[in-house]
Amino acid sequence: MQRLIHEIFQPAFSNVFLNSMQDSAILPALNGRVAFTTDAYVVQPLFFPGGDIGSLAIFGTVNDLAMQGAKPLYLSASFILEEGLPMETLKRIVTSMASAATSCGIQIVCGDTKVVDHGKGDQIFIATTGIGLVPNHVDWGPHRIQPGDCLLVSGDLGAHGIAVLSMREGLNFSGNLRSDAAPLHQVVSALIEEGVTCHCLRDLTRGGLATVLNELAMTSQTGMQVEETRIPISESVRGACEMLGLDPLYVANEGRFVLILPQNQVQTALNILKQHQVSHQAAVIGQVLPLSESRTPFIHLSTPFQTVRILDVLSGEQLPRIC
Amino acid sequence: MQRLIHEIFQPAFSNVFLNSMQDSAILPALNGRVAFTTDAYVVQPLFFPGGDIGSLAIFGTVNDLAMQGAKPLYLSASFILEEGLPMETLKRIVTSMASAATSCGIQIVCGDTKVVDHGKGDQIFIATTGIGLVPNHVDWGPHRIQPGDCLLVSGDLGAHGIAVLSMREGLNFSGNLRSDAAPLHQVVSALIEEGVTCHCLRDLTRGGLATVLNELAMTSQTGMQVEETRIPISESVRGACEMLGLDPLYVANEGRFVLILPQNQVQTALNILKQHQVSHQAAVIGQVLPLSESRTPFIHLSTPFQTVRILDVLSGEQLPRIC
Repeated sequence: MQRLIHEIFQPAFSNVFLNSMQDSAILPALNGRVAFTTDAYVVQPLFFPGGDIGSLAIFGTVNDLAMQGAKPLYLSASFILEEGLPMETLKRIVTSMASAATSCGIQIVCGDTKVVDHGKGDQIFIATTGIGLVPNHVDWGPHRIQPGDCLLVSGDLGAHGIAVLSMREGLNFSGNLRSDAAPLHQVVSALIEEGVTCHCLRDLTRGGLATVLNELAMTSQTGMQVEETRIPISESVRGACEMLGLDPLYVANEGRFVLILPQNQVQTALNILKQHQVSHQAAVIGQVLPLSESRTPFIHLSTPFQTVRILDVLSGEQLPRIC
Repeated sequence: MQRLIHEIFQPAFSNVFLNSMQDSAILPALNGRVAFTTDAYVVQPLFFPGGDIGSLAIFGTVNDLAMQGAKPLYLSASFILEEGLPMETLKRIVTSMASAATSCGIQIVCGDTKVVDHGKGDQIFIATTGIGLVPNHVDWGPHRIQPGDCLLVSGDLGAHGIAVLSMREGLNFSGNLRSDAAPLHQVVSALIEEGVTCHCLRDLTRGGLATVLNELAMTSQTGMQVEETRIPISESVRGACEMLGLDPLYVANEGRFVLILPQNQVQTALNILKQHQVSHQAAVIGQVLPLSESRTPFIHLSTPFQTVRILDVLSGEQLPRIC
């Protein structure tokens, strides 16, 4: 364990807080509202086109902070290693985490490692917890969603889920299928700096767009109307989904978010989103509606055939261990 | 997953931060130095005399905050569940966590749950991350340790490790073998309130007293002299260790700490420690020495036979999956 810490973790993550090697990292005061979030990562395979469990564990937690408008600052990382995990694999993952953290301007300031016997884990699980600071005037969430608001997605959907699944199942689809895993804090920070009034941001992870919209409609007690043809989905994801019998609207993303904001903010927001590589395919996909008399939140998908399909909540997880 | 959240986690941990069900919990400003710590818990069996993985995941992280003098405030919890884990087991663990958190005056404000396939985990792993506030004048750590300082332990050693091991191996030792798992923040807070000058506190978890003293001697570049007969060890732990061929000084504790402080603070500290149930067996066990000319940090154990044994670092972990 001492060797793991001194030869792998500490050199990779080195910073003044971590290096004190105390029971807790001691951080400076956080003068402002603090965003705090945690996620466990159990993705299989560990390495997939466009990312790995290490970068995912950084970007996923950074994005959960960013969705509240928070500037990501510090991260903790807990590792559960299965006996027999090759040191080379661990090093590759830790190096990827370190480089992802640096690219996000975030520091990994404390950590823990446990080893479980062979057959009692699955190579490596990582839990990361993030701390960020929320700017004073930012207050985003489902409670702000109002009928008349517009729905935007930040880019094409489904690439992460399909990339992981195709790698796991050894499927070889045509096209350049790469995970969309990416940090979103910079584009979010640009929206804040440019003074765009947002009502709610949410990253489209497990369960994809359909699941997230259902959760938001339920919490905000609204309906939502989405136009299918406006939702960006790449040809390769669409093709893979057709072959696998999956609906891309339920497939997980790791670098995409939905943005709900007043109509008069849409053009400014779109201009900013399109200036960032991670969101250059941003599109308006629909709007928020008042509840009908039945008072049941709903997601209506207008199809190209002039019909309306109800996007419901799936009862199970469409794809397991995708993050 | 929605059912898990709404039927098990949310009712048990309910608080205003968690209930917002956002990507991040939004906490009020932390005006003061912030202690931040994380640990993964993989103990087997999940339930043992004196505790379970749930209470351990709370107390362990609370104690890592307390060892820096921090007042514990908020916790995150990430769960990795193995498919097939009975709901009743999960409920028992979550209930135990909730009650442990309440007893520590700490709130579980955000969380995450992942499910892995049967055979790819071991029932349940929990990672908790804690946030606390460090009082202005508190600055504890190995950098403060000085020759002449006294070494105290807060109570009898080895009960946690032996309790878990005996449960796991189906051993039936005589005596009331219960884990010492307990929160330490209250007694630490009393030391601060009474104005005791401490130099370093460290909880005696993995590797026990011997490992922790070695780490502290190494970091502070000192030697340490410990008198074996002064170290409190219960008869039942001593007996079990003899039968198992274990050295209790290397066995893990989850509610014990070492306290290093100037000689003139010892009596006040002991009085306070003895007033708290969790530390009523506190004892002075030795002192910090300057390095000899060889400049190699050391731990010397004076035995009842007037000999001196060197307490070295173990090369492996004495007992796996004890926390």
